[in-house]
Amino acid sequence: MIELDQESIKRSRMRYGEIQLYAGSACPELAQKIANYLDVSLKGRDVIEFPNENLFLKLHSSARGQDCYVIQTHATPLHRNLMEMLIMIQTLRLDYASRVTAVMPYLAYSRSDKKDQPRVPITARLVADMIEVAGASRYITMDLHAGQIQGFFTVPGDVLRGAHVLNPYLRKIRPQMKDPVVVTADLGFAKKGRQYAHVLDAPMSFIEKRRIANDARAEALTLIGDVNGKDVVLVDDEVDTGGTLAQAVKVVKEHGAADVYMVFVHPVLSRNASERLAALPVTEFITTDTLPIPEQKRAFFGERLTVLTVSQLLGEVIRRAHEGRSVGAMFNE
Amino acid sequence: MIELDQESIKRSRMRYGEIQLYAGSACPELAQKIANYLDVSLKGRDVIEFPNENLFLKLHSSARGQDCYVIQTHATPLHRNLMEMLIMIQTLRLDYASRVTAVMPYLAYSRSDKKDQPRVPITARLVADMIEVAGASRYITMDLHAGQIQGFFTVPGDVLRGAHVLNPYLRKIRPQMKDPVVVTADLGFAKKGRQYAHVLDAPMSFIEKRRIANDARAEALTLIGDVNGKDVVLVDDEVDTGGTLAQAVKVVKEHGAADVYMVFVHPVLSRNASERLAALPVTEFITTDTLPIPEQKRAFFGERLTVLTVSQLLGEVIRRAHEGRSVGAMFNE
Amino acid sequence: MIELDQESIKRSRMRYGEIQLYAGSACPELAQKIANYLDVSLKGRDVIEFPNENLFLKLHSSARGQDCYVIQTHATPLHRNLMEMLIMIQTLRLDYASRVTAVMPYLAYSRSDKKDQPRVPITARLVADMIEVAGASRYITMDLHAGQIQGFFTVPGDVLRGAHVLNPYLRKIRPQMKDPVVVTADLGFAKKGRQYAHVLDAPMSFIEKRRIANDARAEALTLIGDVNGKDVVLVDDEVDTGGTLAQAVKVVKEHGAADVYMVFVHPVLSRNASERLAALPVTEFITTDTLPIPEQKRAFFGERLTVLTVSQLLGEVIRRAHEGRSVGAMFNE
Amino acid sequence: MIELDQESIKRSRMRYGEIQLYAGSACPELAQKIANYLDVSLKGRDVIEFPNENLFLKLHSSARGQDCYVIQTHATPLHRNLMEMLIMIQTLRLDYASRVTAVMPYLAYSRSDKKDQPRVPITARLVADMIEVAGASRYITMDLHAGQIQGFFTVPGDVLRGAHVLNPYLRKIRPQMKDPVVVTADLGFAKKGRQYAHVLDAPMSFIEKRRIANDARAEALTLIGDVNGKDVVLVDDEVDTGGTLAQAVKVVKEHGAADVYMVFVHPVLSRNASERLAALPVTEFITTDTLPIPEQKRAFFGERLTVLTVSQLLGEVIRRAHEGRSVGAMFNE
Amino acid sequence: MIELDQESIKRSRMRYGEIQLYAGSACPELAQKIANYLDVSLKGRDVIEFPNENLFLKLHSSARGQDCYVIQTHATPLHRNLMEMLIMIQTLRLDYASRVTAVMPYLAYSRSDKKDQPRVPITARLVADMIEVAGASRYITMDLHAGQIQGFFTVPGDVLRGAHVLNPYLRKIRPQMKDPVVVTADLGFAKKGRQYAHVLDAPMSFIEKRRIANDARAEALTLIGDVNGKDVVLVDDEVDTGGTLAQAVKVVKEHGAADVYMVFVHPVLSRNASERLAALPVTEFITTDTLPIPEQKRAFFGERLTVLTVSQLLGEVIRRAHEGRSVGAMFNE
Amino acid sequence: MIELDQESIKRSRMRYGEIQLYAGSACPELAQKIANYLDVSLKGRDVIEFPNENLFLKLHSSARGQDCYVIQTHATPLHRNLMEMLIMIQTLRLDYASRVTAVMPYLAYSRSDKKDQPRVPITARLVADMIEVAGASRYITMDLHAGQIQGFFTVPGDVLRGAHVLNPYLRKIRPQMKDPVVVTADLGFAKKGRQYAHVLDAPMSFIEKRRIANDARAEALTLIGDVNGKDVVLVDDEVDTGGTLAQAVKVVKEHGAADVYMVFVHPVLSRNASERLAALPVTEFITTDTLPIPEQKRAFFGERLTVLTVSQLLGEVIRRAHEGRSVGAMFNE
Repeated sequence: MIELDQESIKRSRMRYGEIQLYAGSACPELAQKIANYLDVSLKGRDVIEFPNENLFLKLHSSARGQDCYVIQTHATPLHRNLMEMLIMIQTLRLDYASRVTAVMPYLAYSRSDKKDQPRVPITARLVADMIEVAGASRYITMDLHAGQIQGFFTVPGDVLRGAHVLNPYLRKIRPQMKDPVVVTADLGFAKKGRQYAHVLDAPMSFIEKRRIANDARAEALTLIGDVNGKDVVLVDDEVDTGGTLAQAVKVVKEHGAADVYMVFVHPVLSRNASERLAALPVTEFITTDTLPIPEQKRAFFGERLTVLTVSQLLGEVIRRAHEGRSVGAMFNE
Repeated sequence: MIELDQESIKRSRMRYGEIQLYAGSACPELAQKIANYLDVSLKGRDVIEFPNENLFLKLHSSARGQDCYVIQTHATPLHRNLMEMLIMIQTLRLDYASRVTAVMPYLAYSRSDKKDQPRVPITARLVADMIEVAGASRYITMDLHAGQIQGFFTVPGDVLRGAHVLNPYLRKIRPQMKDPVVVTADLGFAKKGRQYAHVLDAPMSFIEKRRIANDARAEALTLIGDVNGKDVVLVDDEVDTGGTLAQAVKVVKEHGAADVYMVFVHPVLSRNASERLAALPVTEFITTDTLPIPEQKRAFFGERLTVLTVSQLLGEVIRRAHEGRSVGAMFNE
Repeated sequence: MIELDQESIKRSRMRYGEIQLYAGSACPELAQKIANYLDVSLKGRDVIEFPNENLFLKLHSSARGQDCYVIQTHATPLHRNLMEMLIMIQTLRLDYASRVTAVMPYLAYSRSDKKDQPRVPITARLVADMIEVAGASRYITMDLHAGQIQGFFTVPGDVLRGAHVLNPYLRKIRPQMKDPVVVTADLGFAKKGRQYAHVLDAPMSFIEKRRIANDARAEALTLIGDVNGKDVVLVDDEVDTGGTLAQAVKVVKEHGAADVYMVFVHPVLSRNASERLAALPVTEFITTDTLPIPEQKRAFFGERLTVLTVSQLLGEVIRRAHEGRSVGAMFNE
Repeated sequence: MIELDQESIKRSRMRYGEIQLYAGSACPELAQKIANYLDVSLKGRDVIEFPNENLFLKLHSSARGQDCYVIQTHATPLHRNLMEMLIMIQTLRLDYASRVTAVMPYLAYSRSDKKDQPRVPITARLVADMIEVAGASRYITMDLHAGQIQGFFTVPGDVLRGAHVLNPYLRKIRPQMKDPVVVTADLGFAKKGRQYAHVLDAPMSFIEKRRIANDARAEALTLIGDVNGKDVVLVDDEVDTGGTLAQAVKVVKEHGAADVYMVFVHPVLSRNASERLAALPVTEFITTDTLPIPEQKRAFFGERLTVLTVSQLLGEVIRRAHEGRSVGAMFNE
Repeated sequence: MIELDQESIKRSRMRYGEIQLYAGSACPELAQKIANYLDVSLKGRDVIEFPNENLFLKLHSSARGQDCYVIQTHATPLHRNLMEMLIMIQTLRLDYASRVTAVMPYLAYSRSDKKDQPRVPITARLVADMIEVAGASRYITMDLHAGQIQGFFTVPGDVLRGAHVLNPYLRKIRPQMKDPVVVTADLGFAKKGRQYAHVLDAPMSFIEKRRIANDARAEALTLIGDVNGKDVVLVDDEVDTGGTLAQAVKVVKEHGAADVYMVFVHPVLSRNASERLAALPVTEFITTDTLPIPEQKRAFFGERLTVLTVSQLLGEVIRRAHEGRSVGAMFNE
Repeated sequence: MIELDQESIKRSRMRYGEIQLYAGSACPELAQKIANYLDVSLKGRDVIEFPNENLFLKLHSSARGQDCYVIQTHATPLHRNLMEMLIMIQTLRLDYASRVTAVMPYLAYSRSDKKDQPRVPITARLVADMIEVAGASRYITMDLHAGQIQGFFTVPGDVLRGAHVLNPYLRKIRPQMKDPVVVTADLGFAKKGRQYAHVLDAPMSFIEKRRIANDARAEALTLIGDVNGKDVVLVDDEVDTGGTLAQAVKVVKEHGAADVYMVFVHPVLSRNASERLAALPVTEFITTDTLPIPEQKRAFFGERLTVLTVSQLLGEVIRRAHEGRSVGAMFNE
């Protein structure tokens, strides 16, 4: 992206040693792509899983005085991968890494972020505490469910937006769309949805779930705004089981939508979400590789699935973090 | 509200000593009402402000082994009152209070809760850190701007909702309303607005700010939903300068609204907000005493201002916190 | 076991509220037995596992001011159960429990307790840190691999020994043994093995792995001591895959051992360990329920498996912890 | 002062990045002078004060990997300026500054430094805690009321003495004085007063407040030592309302003092102190700019007020702190 | 002293269990006297010193849930006694004491309380940190060199004054004094000296060390005030080698003092201080037992040494701390 | 040992400043040897011991921004030396050292590492806590009694093995031995003893203490293995009073051992251990200088004592730690 200042590189190496990338087991391909972008090799490490499920880690070479990045997304098997990341962080800290940054393209438990009823956890805070107690001095993640989660960490962090890679692609395919309208299926995502409307120079509509009359259980999906004869761009931050979005497609189609595009950053795609979504009358599914999509899930979508890589984005942020250069400047903010 | 179990009271006194209420300078009336509800006296303390603005505190009697509550809302002068609260907390801790609970009907800085742009603070986290480092072991507050702020604290807390006192009042005046509709002036408050619609058994409408065409600066207020010939209940969590709500009243009136009611929990009413709001064609302003409204501000509103007290709510939560009984049970949750 | 002092119970309830037992998903039966011993009910809680593996917890009733115990052994699926325990602890802390004690009959990762080579983790310390950061103020566990792990915790804890329930049983079956000899298959367990020899009033023998001549890979098992014509009692703290113990049985049999008894506290029994062990010429397998043994694993052993319950031991320690009475006194120490 | 070692500068930049100076709102002129001394520009930042008094901060450029200094004296409005400083510190920390140093020419609350009666705060410790929890890794301040306050901080700090700039000036005007004698108006300042006597090669006298006979309320000011016909140099660390010093001037005049000079480091000058002091028969008031003196206050003194700048002193210490060179060496200690 | 409220005692036992006093090796007699006052037995513990100087501790009975007080003055051998105290504190904490209070009649290192020159420690802060990290939740001590040391602790504490026992004695012997005058040998003790003057209804004089002319090494002791023909009461907080006080006696005698009394709280009496002091023309030495005075040191003084016990004072404060009653009220403050 | 990379040295100096070695009072000779190896001078500092035993420290020059190492072994007088080390660490931290590493060739209290009975301390954890609270960011030590003690520290550390210097020497004298056999006198050291057997290509034997029949007090030493006519190499990690090893020599001699060599890392040699050991029929005592052996103790052994220096080992580790190079690589691990 930006020309590297040779003086800056030199200074950074003086200060923190070399960049050392360590890949967890959850996203080896994304980690490799980041390494490629940075023109470094992933550092060797053995992760051994004993018969009793205990994980053991052994680094191939010393991290002493180096600037280390643990790249681990919170994909399935979630808790094993979370623990693997924490063990990596502790090992690097105990091996005298000069800094340890947790790079988590997808941060788990970010929806458990407040007590909106009594006697429930704030698990996102627990996860932040675990990352810090293991020894991370910084973190990098993407598209948190609520930006406030940054405040759960005591250490500083960078929260990137998938829009950085989604927007250029949306701009590219904009000419093929007919009179597009951006639709969110959740009022809570309305504000974030606006940036897509801005990029596509399109109006917005909302789908709202509303209770019917005196029946506490019945819900009606109401479409606010007009999609008749228009291409619909359904946007969200993550897709888990895809249930809500499946309903939304049905609603917009009932209201006369033409082509439907579905755009989301984190492809969680739990259970049979892939199969369910692929069965919908959707022209294109556009997402990123913050979470790996196994081949058997990709197969359901065929050509209709577009996965944009966040590896260059993460790679560039790692480079700037390493060199002490502004990350905000990447986004002209 | 609920009959007090004599065994429970006895047990609680054994454990934590007596309830001791300490009032900060910011809301003496509310503090007195809480004391009345609990049938205790506010504990004596001298707050001295030296010529150099330094505050000094002296408790009249020992807090050793007692269950202490510092009642201080974050009203103007904000930073002085914040510091006064922190000094009270530290003093009680150093005097061996068995527990110190910060009771903050209105928590300042709760809108500075995330880095939505680079190089800005998360001041709400800073405030939480300051409260904890001063020595509070618990906190009680009301209607946070974002529920996630609970995760900024390490110590546990209770976040109450003004709806607890607003709802009964709204139910009481419901018969006098003609076909009411609940309106929010900010999409971010849409979800929270629903509970008012539920209480009034009324539909909702939203006012959305939207950019016009290619002009980045021009904004148009769009009303989503129907208010024509209906009574409008405008709801929000706090009112600062009242600018947005003033615009909203104009919009709903333009769309044929009949009577307009304005409902909000925290009457910040900065600058000339009172004068501005009082000039609007609003039938009734309904709020609470989480922040004191000085007489000269009240005068603008005359009879149209209804201030419901949260003192019984806070008093009951303090009682239950003291006695180790469920707070959630107050709300049938 | 010991008569309860009524004054003591009353005092304890005054201080910390009632005992509240919360069972994790890993050992519901053991938790129920502990509850039975203490004559209380397990507290209700919902553990929900979302499609994306995220766990969610909701307590049925308030823990405010109560003395709470989270009973969760670190059985498979290990990392999920570990996280569940941490979430329970945090939830109780945020719900104002007066104390939260982690009761972990089997503590995971206790073999990863030192850096005996460079660039490896000390995962047991990480686990201790995670338990503390979640909010446990105390812990209870059994037969740590190394007693030093107690020093990894900042909070105090009780480490119980399975011998407390194994010894009485061994004494009971002692008359049926012919000239027993206690054998350990690992030199590191030699010291701990002595207490079994003491209980059975029997001599000891050791099995040592020794390298052969100049071949770094070949190992020979050497039996130190005499087992010819004697009954052998093979003892260890835990059995994982059972490989080492299977070799040990072979060795003692080759040296003329008569009946073989196998005694161990923690039945990890990973993979096909049950099948492998059941195929050995062992008269009786004697263990405890610190980890649940599923029915299909028990089936391999048939009548030869004796599982002694630690529920009364844990129950009594919880009672004494609750009442502030000496735990050490249970063991006449 | 001292020639800069080019190698040292280079090394320092390698290590901590460039010096970045951020000025709070309380002492913009002093901050600018420090920047001038260091030949750098003050970094741009917007401080916005919302109608509800909440402060908001936005840095103009990235602080990532830089060596940042927040220059903020604790002048009026005290609590607002204190909070502004804390927000600046947090913002820089969250923006990955490599170090954040709080530069506080005048530290507030330093007289509330011990519990000399029951049930009072130790506010100076609270302020230290707040500075650390915000994220300062170091601090620089001047002439603490009690040196022990250094022990309230966990992070290291430099405490400079205004004598560093006052002494050279006093030496310069020494020839115009007739037989000077140094006088302190507070026994607690007696030891610190000695260094002025040393610089002026003058004897000392003390003014002591003593109770009269059996009347607990009446106080008599006693002059210990001889000032008759001599020039008096009245010294203190700070001047708040000036009441004590005004009395002292009266006493020494009654004892026959010739010219009176008044020397103090921190010109707090609360309320009408300026007017009161200016009315006294004092030849010259000599102080520093650790706190800004507004024009209307200066006007009372006219030519008789000499304000020496500490900007070079602070600038040089910042430079040495940045470069990792000895600060103590500046003072030949 | 004060009648004990039976309800209060009962409540306190409910809360924190019984008072348990543990005596360190440094002041067994004082500890026993405190136990006598409180009508309890010192709890049994074995302190073993291994040949390699390592200390080992074993409590005779459980401290679980009890309110424990470690009584250890910082007498010689200082560092051994300090470590013994820290080990006791940790042991009690790990044994689940409900509270651990460090009772240190004399706190070591309290003169190393600030950096008054570069590159020196603040050892008093280090000692405070060590006490807290060992696990003390509170402390009780007497006559700190500087009251600010309270701010070095994060946990709360009570700092008592020896004056509490010295004053009644001084009042008692007042009639036998002829025209007494209180003298301090150190300007830094001048303020604290006043309370003795108040008690004796006597004037004060000061001895000041002043440099002579241009010779940096020569010092002259100047007596400020009049002692001619009067009885002199020399007061200080502690006596180490006694050098300064010996000089002071000489000075007041040279100025015509009649009888001389020497009053100090902490009898450190290092090296040959006892012999040196006993040789002075002093009528009576009045001190306390915050530090034990071995028989061979006492012998030098014969009848002239009066040691007042602080055991009742400490005992009463422990009782009030235990019962959650005001300590300040003991002193009518 | 290994050629120094000039680029690496330069980088390290940029980062952390120069190596600064500070020697405590406990092992000045070892510290000097380390300095020699590193070709630097020990930094000047004054350690003053006041009459009241209080230690005071003053560094001769600034440590600001430098990479500081405090070299202090835990020799007698143990607690004084421990405190001296802690004071040095704090002083360096408060003087802005960029890093402070505690270099403790022998770590005290490492045998008090677990609660193997109720109501005892874990003093090794307390020592670790004290080192960290004083401000050490890293530690270097040798041959811990139990490797798990590493987990007591939160900061990372390097634990070296004396075998590094003992092994080459043993290899050198191997040819003069007749059929050597390695013997351990403590089963707990059996595993560690193996590496000596490996180095000497020798078999092992064990001495076990076993209880006799029904007499709880009588112990019999049993030799497991064959030493008849062979040279015996008795190995252990430290020698305190030498009692166990003296018994062991007797046993092996009774079983026909030829020459006996005694090898141990830490020469604690308490009380009359030197005299006792020297009286044994031992050919050579081989140890290291992790603890100084005073001349009068050495005299007992005469020529039979071989003390190998660990100074080069420690020096090289300090160098690598300073330069951020792998320490593990020194040992081909």
